[in-house]
Amino acid sequence: MKKIAFTCGDPGGIGFEVLLKALLLLPKPLSFYPIIFGSKALFEHAYYRDLVDELKSELHYCIEFKSVFNLNSIVFSQARAQQGEASASYIKSAVESVLAGDCSALVTAPISKEALSLAKMPYLDHTTYLKYLCEVDEVSMAFYSSYFSVVLATVHVPIQCVSALISQENFLHQRLEHCFEFMTLMGEHAPKIAVAGLNPHAGENALYGFEERDVIEPFVKAAGSKVFGPFAPDTLFRRLVNKEFDCVLAMYHDQALIPLKLMAFDEAVNVTIGLPFLRTSPDHGTAYDIVGTNRANPASMKAAIDFVCRVKTLL
Amino acid sequence: MKKIAFTCGDPGGIGFEVLLKALLLLPKPLSFYPIIFGSKALFEHAYYRDLVDELKSELHYCIEFKSVFNLNSIVFSQARAQQGEASASYIKSAVESVLAGDCSALVTAPISKEALSLAKMPYLDHTTYLKYLCEVDEVSMAFYSSYFSVVLATVHVPIQCVSALISQENFLHQRLEHCFEFMTLMGEHAPKIAVAGLNPHAGENALYGFEERDVIEPFVKAAGSKVFGPFAPDTLFRRLVNKEFDCVLAMYHDQALIPLKLMAFDEAVNVTIGLPFLRTSPDHGTAYDIVGTNRANPASMKAAIDFVCRVKTLL
Repeated sequence: MKKIAFTCGDPGGIGFEVLLKALLLLPKPLSFYPIIFGSKALFEHAYYRDLVDELKSELHYCIEFKSVFNLNSIVFSQARAQQGEASASYIKSAVESVLAGDCSALVTAPISKEALSLAKMPYLDHTTYLKYLCEVDEVSMAFYSSYFSVVLATVHVPIQCVSALISQENFLHQRLEHCFEFMTLMGEHAPKIAVAGLNPHAGENALYGFEERDVIEPFVKAAGSKVFGPFAPDTLFRRLVNKEFDCVLAMYHDQALIPLKLMAFDEAVNVTIGLPFLRTSPDHGTAYDIVGTNRANPASMKAAIDFVCRVKTLL
Repeated sequence: MKKIAFTCGDPGGIGFEVLLKALLLLPKPLSFYPIIFGSKALFEHAYYRDLVDELKSELHYCIEFKSVFNLNSIVFSQARAQQGEASASYIKSAVESVLAGDCSALVTAPISKEALSLAKMPYLDHTTYLKYLCEVDEVSMAFYSSYFSVVLATVHVPIQCVSALISQENFLHQRLEHCFEFMTLMGEHAPKIAVAGLNPHAGENALYGFEERDVIEPFVKAAGSKVFGPFAPDTLFRRLVNKEFDCVLAMYHDQALIPLKLMAFDEAVNVTIGLPFLRTSPDHGTAYDIVGTNRANPASMKAAIDFVCRVKTLL
């Protein structure tokens, strides 16, 4: 049975709670062996005791809790330097175990950018840290949901910089390769890919922007018979929900995330494409406002684990 | 009883069909007297005969069909110069009747930009033509739906130009005034207005764009206690659907139209704010692909009429 590596995320956030709850929700026996990278203080914390005991009993102890960082104490709902340092060390150890071949995929719980910053970590989000640890230049952020699947051409950049980025040579080409990789993971070997326009009405014949005419259209034409577009963004997502396409290549963060979070808030899975292994995570943050109240919803974490389980080449 | 002016839109499109169907769907007797601006050839066309007869009979002839343009013939599903010219003359005559005080509001059916262009009209969309006819400099495009209401800060401009536009002095201020006008029409006299950010995560403390820190935040602070934001765009629309706010000021076309068309495709109403009168229209186009097949859905046109009817200051 393959092993999957899990990180607990920021110890002050809801990461460990949603992870435990999601594993409890999955049908037993599990189709994989979970290895959880965290801290003893978290694993033995009174708040999590019942969930941990229930999980161990349900899995007949076929689960491993690896303490990879000594935390003096745990403070819920706050960004703390030591907790930021801990969350980074969970990622580092988990990645090492996947790269060494001990685990076959990675599922991460949410971290706190503020805690990482307090800890003076040079990498403030998962993606940049994972790229560094794996010595990879380019990864893509992708999302899977029952409504639609999407790969983002650009992510955390000012909206004004999107045009310059997508106009770089081979930029969209590489993102399209990641669309196909993403679809292969999902078992789609001849996917229909929609490419979104950048401007209102996809520029309406270069009336409201030239990027479609000069960049996106030539790129789509060169991309082969299974790639379509550029489409007017405001009507494209309804067509995706109606399953006209298997995946969309979105030009910028909110073009994809506004419809995704509106339709699939509790069930979208963040998938990183371009790493030497599969990595998924829930699409929410640390939710400091509800830590320790038993109100954290494990649906997105469960979806992140379900996604890993359905990748047939892996398990 | 107040009169409402209606235009038939492009004679080759679904405008007249959705108008007739929508008027038939409204509870009788109507709370207003409809004046329909179109062409004799359209009113007497065999395809529309049953709908026209049924409507006249249901309304006991309390409806007026004004032929303001002589069409030689009607060609469905095609952009034709004469039909473009006709659609413009419907708008002109209807606006004149509202400006003269004969009618108290205007509801327009969709026109064809291509037909207007073939007719060599200098105004290719409703908004610019209405601004010209009413001698008004600035109007805002707003949408009402049961999910949320939105005013667009910018509309048909390249995404790259949005930053420069919203940074102009008093630009956002005027759009906010239009938000309040919109809410007043809806009977909301102390509305809570949400202002969207421009960049991913609303810039995340100027990490992904400076417009929130330098432009939108100072504007919101100066705008009073009922105006909130700037909010991260990707989670804001779920909060709007949950009725945390009465209206959102969106920074660009697709930020508003992607979630609107996803949630409320058949029922959103386009409202023009800033004209000397109320004007609404459905949020769809001429739908050339289904003209004459009786498949045109009147839901959005009905919503456009319902919106006019609920404005208490008018009727």
